Amino acid sequence: MKLQIAMPKSVNFFKKYRIYYEDTDSGGVVYYANYLKFFERCRTDFLRSHGINQRSLSEEQSIAFVVRKCNAEYLIPARLDDEVTVTLQVKEVRAASVKLIQKMIINNIILCNFEVDIVCVDSEKFKPKKIPSDIKNIFFI
Amino acid sequence: MKLQIAMPKSVNFFKKYRIYYEDTDSGGVVYYANYLKFFERCRTDFLRSHGINQRSLSEEQSIAFVVRKCNAEYLIPARLDDEVTVTLQVKEVRAASVKLIQKMIINNIILCNFEVDIVCVDSEKFKPKKIPSDIKNIFFI
Amino acid sequence: MKLQIAMPKSVNFFKKYRIYYEDTDSGGVVYYANYLKFFERCRTDFLRSHGINQRSLSEEQSIAFVVRKCNAEYLIPARLDDEVTVTLQVKEVRAASVKLIQKMIINNIILCNFEVDIVCVDSEKFKPKKIPSDIKNIFFI
Amino acid sequence: MKLQIAMPKSVNFFKKYRIYYEDTDSGGVVYYANYLKFFERCRTDFLRSHGINQRSLSEEQSIAFVVRKCNAEYLIPARLDDEVTVTLQVKEVRAASVKLIQKMIINNIILCNFEVDIVCVDSEKFKPKKIPSDIKNIFFI
Repeated sequence: MKLQIAMPKSVNFFKKYRIYYEDTDSGGVVYYANYLKFFERCRTDFLRSHGINQRSLSEEQSIAFVVRKCNAEYLIPARLDDEVTVTLQVKEVRAASVKLIQKMIINNIILCNFEVDIVCVDSEKFKPKKIPSDIKNIFFI
Repeated sequence: MKLQIAMPKSVNFFKKYRIYYEDTDSGGVVYYANYLKFFERCRTDFLRSHGINQRSLSEEQSIAFVVRKCNAEYLIPARLDDEVTVTLQVKEVRAASVKLIQKMIINNIILCNFEVDIVCVDSEKFKPKKIPSDIKNIFFI
Repeated sequence: MKLQIAMPKSVNFFKKYRIYYEDTDSGGVVYYANYLKFFERCRTDFLRSHGINQRSLSEEQSIAFVVRKCNAEYLIPARLDDEVTVTLQVKEVRAASVKLIQKMIINNIILCNFEVDIVCVDSEKFKPKKIPSDIKNIFFI
Repeated sequence: MKLQIAMPKSVNFFKKYRIYYEDTDSGGVVYYANYLKFFERCRTDFLRSHGINQRSLSEEQSIAFVVRKCNAEYLIPARLDDEVTVTLQVKEVRAASVKLIQKMIINNIILCNFEVDIVCVDSEKFKPKKIPSDIKNIFFI
């Protein structure tokens, strides 16, 4: 039986991920830092869904996206074997940065709220750089 | 374009996994310990494909599978954004343990060979326990 | 040569940690989720410095501390082989929760600012529970 | 009270490490892949104790050490809050590779036996390279 989720209009992307042993800790639930891994996977898969591969981006254009700020609110713990849905919504787009809102949900229940500011940087010097217009466009879809 | 892999008869299960930033290290490739996470995900997904959920197994029957020995041979590094295929082949089944052979491959090229001895234990005391026959059966398929 | 840091009065605890390969990603710096591991190690070591062992706490008193909210600001990336200092300052103490301010610094330069709300819970049911008074006291030192 | 360990002559280096929440999984013990992180930390700290910094080694001499093979035997699980000792013993030194034997121990009891083959490579091309003689010397101490 598949998880049925009616995504609100504002969600730009979502994907399902499985919780494995590696994600949990001896408290019996997902370790708090590991939620951030799932949010990053979702951002990467969002870019990939628009044909953007971050390894090529770094190797060919010296561009990387780095996190400048993030904010997590843990409501209900995710657990071993759960299949969670991670969502991504574009909140704000600037010349060299974007603000995203993400959620981890299961059966329409929010487990974790997340907000993240991403900055486009030169992948060698870590200095901010304008987001190339072809990439910027995908944040407006 | 999908990765085409003709699995040898001896492979009992395989699944694809994506390499994300979290898996790599500053050497530019997947960190050596992280290959073991993908092999474990594959074992878990093999059990799940046969209807076995390890959280229920632990909570309801006090049974867990733990690694007693493993052996990794790293041939070619996996890299960011790679989609790797992880395979699982049952080598030997005993009363309380199984020996599995696993591989991480990409485009028919083996990146990593892996051999692992799994022991069925009581999930509280970590003492060996006979593998329940319904679970044992899946290793003979 | 040892790192010399004059801690402001408000810092209740600090400890040094080393950055290893496992902490970095292929971007060449520490992976954003992994900073949270160092902040958690520091909280654990703060409790330990006051004689509190979280495993005993969970096993003997069914008490655990879980993160309810956190907030990270990444200023300068930590890199392989860096020895960073992580600080902890108690901001607010309530009946069942505490708010802490933490920093990762190196040579008096802040790499990462962190704020975290910790809730005391029953380690089985994850329901909030009053912080035992002997533990509460350490947050007032 | 400090852990008293009389190291056998054959041990070239050892160091203590703490087990934190991040290292454990919901089985209540250290996740099997994470033992490899502690063995790697010990190898890095062994090199550092001889004045060798792997970041400089990679940046200035394009040299990296990568794992070619490893072998772990898990005897007794390490648990949250344990302070483990990790040892390193040089078994064999060749032109471009070394074989090491490592153990994780606690109170003179071996938790995990580990054997690892390390290859010296060009950090760009991942091709084997002769170990520079000044580094090679430290393996003979």
